[in-house]
Amino acid sequence: MGEFDLIARYFTRPVRRAALGVGDDCALLAPAPGMQLAVSTDMLVEDRHFFAGTNPERLGHKALAVNLSDLAACGARPLAFTLALALPAADDAWLAAFARGLFALADAHGCELVGGDTTQGPLNLCITVWGEVPPGQALLRSGARAGDDLYVSGTLGDARLALEALQGHRPLPPALLEAARQRLEQPTPRVALGLALRGVASAALDVSDGLLGDLAHILRASGVGACVDTSITMNLIAASALPESATVLFDLNFLHQCTLAGGDDYELLFTAPAAARAAVAAASQASSTPVTRIGRIEAEPGMRLIDGQGQPVVHHYTSFDHFA
Amino acid sequence: MGEFDLIARYFTRPVRRAALGVGDDCALLAPAPGMQLAVSTDMLVEDRHFFAGTNPERLGHKALAVNLSDLAACGARPLAFTLALALPAADDAWLAAFARGLFALADAHGCELVGGDTTQGPLNLCITVWGEVPPGQALLRSGARAGDDLYVSGTLGDARLALEALQGHRPLPPALLEAARQRLEQPTPRVALGLALRGVASAALDVSDGLLGDLAHILRASGVGACVDTSITMNLIAASALPESATVLFDLNFLHQCTLAGGDDYELLFTAPAAARAAVAAASQASSTPVTRIGRIEAEPGMRLIDGQGQPVVHHYTSFDHFA
Repeated sequence: MGEFDLIARYFTRPVRRAALGVGDDCALLAPAPGMQLAVSTDMLVEDRHFFAGTNPERLGHKALAVNLSDLAACGARPLAFTLALALPAADDAWLAAFARGLFALADAHGCELVGGDTTQGPLNLCITVWGEVPPGQALLRSGARAGDDLYVSGTLGDARLALEALQGHRPLPPALLEAARQRLEQPTPRVALGLALRGVASAALDVSDGLLGDLAHILRASGVGACVDTSITMNLIAASALPESATVLFDLNFLHQCTLAGGDDYELLFTAPAAARAAVAAASQASSTPVTRIGRIEAEPGMRLIDGQGQPVVHHYTSFDHFA
Repeated sequence: MGEFDLIARYFTRPVRRAALGVGDDCALLAPAPGMQLAVSTDMLVEDRHFFAGTNPERLGHKALAVNLSDLAACGARPLAFTLALALPAADDAWLAAFARGLFALADAHGCELVGGDTTQGPLNLCITVWGEVPPGQALLRSGARAGDDLYVSGTLGDARLALEALQGHRPLPPALLEAARQRLEQPTPRVALGLALRGVASAALDVSDGLLGDLAHILRASGVGACVDTSITMNLIAASALPESATVLFDLNFLHQCTLAGGDDYELLFTAPAAARAAVAAASQASSTPVTRIGRIEAEPGMRLIDGQGQPVVHHYTSFDHFA
């Protein structure tokens, strides 16, 4: 199978919305009049972002999911994406499964593959995604104000739990591993929530490197500080709902590490004025996405963690940095 | 140096045209009303597209050049790009030189870096580029008609000549190697020519895998055939102008291999009606880009090579395929 056969067989589908899709030097997009385009790029590298041998269907899902998550964090509606793929070899079964996972998620969000590149090399998946958002309505990192509430969607820490197990640091009972692993390998981009939060959230981003590290981006961009209630965040790990979790998660330090600085969560972390609590609840309901209030924004710079009694929690959790 | 320092130090500059640049979850672009967006993605992998140890300033140039070349082939005006970068390590000198080469070319074309991704991994450069083109004016591969002239811009084969020397297959005199190597490592995207060919060329693409292989894409997309005069194409290798070339290029078979199936040329291959010869000449002059008529489009499918006497040339030159 040559390069062009590969593209034709696995990555060429009838054009739907684009003016021109896969197969020429460029794809052509016809942006809706008056809309801004939100653009994001994420690159996944084998042995860095995923283990060698990861289920290719899940990998196809994840490669697009992490990009859609960036659109969600901006409140943008997905439109199209390009895929650049470096592969050690052209393996039919792998490609078919990868394409299946990729397109299932793409179709669920009406996001069209319009072009890309395919080459031989160490496994590397690079996706650039476009969405649209009305001018002035994009959710940015810079809009948090003292007094705002701080929220996070969904669950936190399960991806890290799975990672620790797969790396052999913390063995997990099989049912717990499978549940946590699904969160690691098939994250859910919170696109519907991001759209529902337009005009409601004052700032937002998606949690990819860990809650505290990503919160720091909002605080720096907005020039504010925050207080986070760890008695709430520690319960946001989905695994804790499983009976098998008791022996694994009793270690409070580990639980905080997973939920506060786990990484690979792809949940939305956002702020909203206290007056908007009903609107946040409505956005959560409209998008069928759980949302939890975990703290609040304060004028004093820095990040303060508290326990259920309001006492300070000493911490040293750091987020993931590819070059630290 | 951490990931965010790296981005701040080398890849963050004041926003010019974008509504929002590097530093949030997405960049925001405000497309010009009524224009279509042309989009292309190219991924360069170490040891596949460039040698380990390649001058990083030239590599920064090339990574963007091969993408701008796709815009040129569509007749699109460059607007913005994202850069995803996998690096084995964050090396200051390397990054500074890479950014210098990248931004020199970006600035020359008014093309703005709006976002991207940085991660650790085997060296891999993935750029997605946007341009704009008025609806209906993009140059496609599918518009060639029997009777059209066939043209190529600039020179052909020097990149392959350099590649053969650097791989140790064909030693070159130093002056010749340096000249050829510059064409390999710092190709010139023919953006101005592409713009000037709007409304003139009937079909176009950029030559990246080799003249004949890329011509085949036009022929297939347009449902036509072509005749190419190899007595003309064999003289399009720039190196032949150097006195050192005589002993290297006397082998006709090798000369044809370089010019007809060399790869990495990044010249525009295009067709235009015979009635448009003056318009093609004007486009060449307006863009200060040499253009050579090398053959013509015929109704009969397939590709025919002829020599200076019009006699058939038997050939077995194949273009580059990453998975063949």
